[in-house]
Amino acid sequence: MKTEPKILAGYMELLPAQQIQFNKMLRVIQDTFELYGFAPLDTPAIEMSQVLLAKAGGETEKQIYKFTRGKNDLCLRFDLTVPLARYVAQRQNQLVFPFKRYQTQKVWRAERPQKGRFREFYQCDIDIIGSKNLLTDAEILSVIYQVFTRLGFERFTIKINNRKVLNGFLQFINFKDSAQVLRIIDKLEKQSQQNTTEELANLGLTPDAIKKLLGFVQICGTPDQIINNLQQLNINNRQFLQGIKELKTVSQNMLSLGIEPNNFAIDLKIARGLDYYTGTVYETILNDYPQIGSVCSGGRYDNLANCYTNRDLPGVGVSIGLTRLFDQLLKAGSIKTSTSTPAQVLVASANPAALNQSVKIAQILRQANIATELFTEDYLLSKQLKYAARQGFKFVVITGMREAGEGKVTVKKLATSVQDEVKISDIAIYINNHI
Amino acid sequence: MKTEPKILAGYMELLPAQQIQFNKMLRVIQDTFELYGFAPLDTPAIEMSQVLLAKAGGETEKQIYKFTRGKNDLCLRFDLTVPLARYVAQRQNQLVFPFKRYQTQKVWRAERPQKGRFREFYQCDIDIIGSKNLLTDAEILSVIYQVFTRLGFERFTIKINNRKVLNGFLQFINFKDSAQVLRIIDKLEKQSQQNTTEELANLGLTPDAIKKLLGFVQICGTPDQIINNLQQLNINNRQFLQGIKELKTVSQNMLSLGIEPNNFAIDLKIARGLDYYTGTVYETILNDYPQIGSVCSGGRYDNLANCYTNRDLPGVGVSIGLTRLFDQLLKAGSIKTSTSTPAQVLVASANPAALNQSVKIAQILRQANIATELFTEDYLLSKQLKYAARQGFKFVVITGMREAGEGKVTVKKLATSVQDEVKISDIAIYINNHI
Repeated sequence: MKTEPKILAGYMELLPAQQIQFNKMLRVIQDTFELYGFAPLDTPAIEMSQVLLAKAGGETEKQIYKFTRGKNDLCLRFDLTVPLARYVAQRQNQLVFPFKRYQTQKVWRAERPQKGRFREFYQCDIDIIGSKNLLTDAEILSVIYQVFTRLGFERFTIKINNRKVLNGFLQFINFKDSAQVLRIIDKLEKQSQQNTTEELANLGLTPDAIKKLLGFVQICGTPDQIINNLQQLNINNRQFLQGIKELKTVSQNMLSLGIEPNNFAIDLKIARGLDYYTGTVYETILNDYPQIGSVCSGGRYDNLANCYTNRDLPGVGVSIGLTRLFDQLLKAGSIKTSTSTPAQVLVASANPAALNQSVKIAQILRQANIATELFTEDYLLSKQLKYAARQGFKFVVITGMREAGEGKVTVKKLATSVQDEVKISDIAIYINNHI
Repeated sequence: MKTEPKILAGYMELLPAQQIQFNKMLRVIQDTFELYGFAPLDTPAIEMSQVLLAKAGGETEKQIYKFTRGKNDLCLRFDLTVPLARYVAQRQNQLVFPFKRYQTQKVWRAERPQKGRFREFYQCDIDIIGSKNLLTDAEILSVIYQVFTRLGFERFTIKINNRKVLNGFLQFINFKDSAQVLRIIDKLEKQSQQNTTEELANLGLTPDAIKKLLGFVQICGTPDQIINNLQQLNINNRQFLQGIKELKTVSQNMLSLGIEPNNFAIDLKIARGLDYYTGTVYETILNDYPQIGSVCSGGRYDNLANCYTNRDLPGVGVSIGLTRLFDQLLKAGSIKTSTSTPAQVLVASANPAALNQSVKIAQILRQANIATELFTEDYLLSKQLKYAARQGFKFVVITGMREAGEGKVTVKKLATSVQDEVKISDIAIYINNHI
């Protein structure tokens, strides 16, 4: 009896051609994070429930994979922010602040499987802990701008807002329970105006307040126009004015950090559901893939780790949901999957006696740092060439051809079928020149 | 009430300076695997128990993290070989064979925490599936040779043996239950000759057979000497002779794949505990760190996935236990941990007014692909320099110095304290020239 080989629903597992592209994206992200001086962090996948869930509750807690081992209640991490908070609190005397870290690892959430939702997914996070300087809010976005540019996107929009602006406005219209309102505002674009109005009315907002609020969050224009517009509202609320000031500073910092104006907008509808944000909040959308929603979200918090330590740890961070992004790009046909090998060159043998020479050629190329696969099976040459084409190699080096004289091999460029006889001593130079 | 921030025993979590070195090692390993044409694979951490445990049993099964979610029995992967078997069986019609994959991910085993044992650790695996050619047995070792060379080790020994030699010898001395004997032989170096003798006697071996066996596995010399020695034993057992032939072929292939003779030995005591190996088996030791034991083990198997498919999937593979290796090197003081940042340069501001210029410099350096951190806090310059030294930056670029003329900044090389005034337009070139 054979066991059927299969995986659970809601888990992404890729074929080699896809995995190669996924890893390329991941490396671009990691390399860009390091370019800005963020240090890597790797935390355990499993932590003690009492530690990891110290602050959790509600919907999040229901989705957590929990289990018991011996006398320990354990759970799998459901994000990278809580482990970061725990890490920073635990190692605060060994770390130097401001502490800039990145973490690109899997997290697990037992969500109801549905289109585009995963139970296991990569998050790519950066945070700067221990700075209140709003330059860091913009620097985080500069990293994101660089990441998406390096990933080959041109048409993306980094959208920012500030919690203080929203909270200040709600205070101004005399409304207290801002957390609930923020959650409704946050999903404004996903539901009808009528539903939104009903939900806000259920919270106790008057029709007039609702009208003001919806008019307010839909103020649009360039960043300068929106900031002017907000200032002209003449709302004399301390928090509101502070929020405008912060929005203005972050916008200016973004420009001086090289973010192109057409990749950047203020959007007063962005609230972010999470409670811990206290200032700047952000989302990023790919203009050509509106269905994906925000590919990258984050914001500023006053207290990262207040359930673990009395020390104030203000900071700012952002998270890219890579698994979902990759899945959507794959489905949109935007991921090139013609290559199933990281190697450029396949070394094939025209006859079994030539295999020894193939071994030598493969080693010469590898020593020249050219990724090379050695074909070891005793197949007809035509079948080896078919394998090379199917796997997506750029070159096949063929040994043992009668036409090739002593000390020469045949090199075939697969894209053009152009074929050359090349001296073995020149083989690495030839490949490097023709890549 | 604050929750104490801590992690479980048996889990490795590193400080940034250590993590940077860990990641460097991991990248060397991944890059070398790709240089040889192995394609990346990433499988779910969680799989269905009925699938992942189809073949497991005994000690392994006791160590597996198992839990239930809804109606599913789940477990965390305990190695990368079983997920590979499942993957290859599941995707056999989409993959092209021989299939060469690498996988560098965490696995989990609920072992009793003890010195040098981890419950979560990275395995770095390569396998070639679908080839019986013994050239692949040697090619796997060529990758390992290259990995340890690139990691900076010179004094390491790749040790090979062949299960058929051992099994054939046991048949020759008329002993049937080879699996049990192999497990005892495998731990020969870890216990006294007397204990080994007792354990073998308990299995029913006669004193004469034990003497022969222990004499046999301790045959030593160069690979050629050992092979000659084995041939001269005149043991006329089909399996034994086949084993010698394979050992000889793999040894010769290793030399033609560029493995230095002093990094390579035949060791007849290597048996490997796992049942699925059928031919070549290997281990690698670091000569200067004998206490670590084998840092990298593997071998050839006739059937990778016979619990999932009827298709024959012979292959060969190896696994590096990176977490344990890193931990031991760290404890031996062999890991340099003087740098807590991936950035080369810190941009500091002599006064808050210079921060704008610092932003510009940081962006110029990043655009030149020089990893750069921008110091954002309003600290005294002396404190910024202390931060730079403590974090291990190579250079500090200081803006806003009175001595520096218009369009110039001060660059300080921290190792030498040499300080230069550099034109802003030349800053990237200056850093690149002085790195």
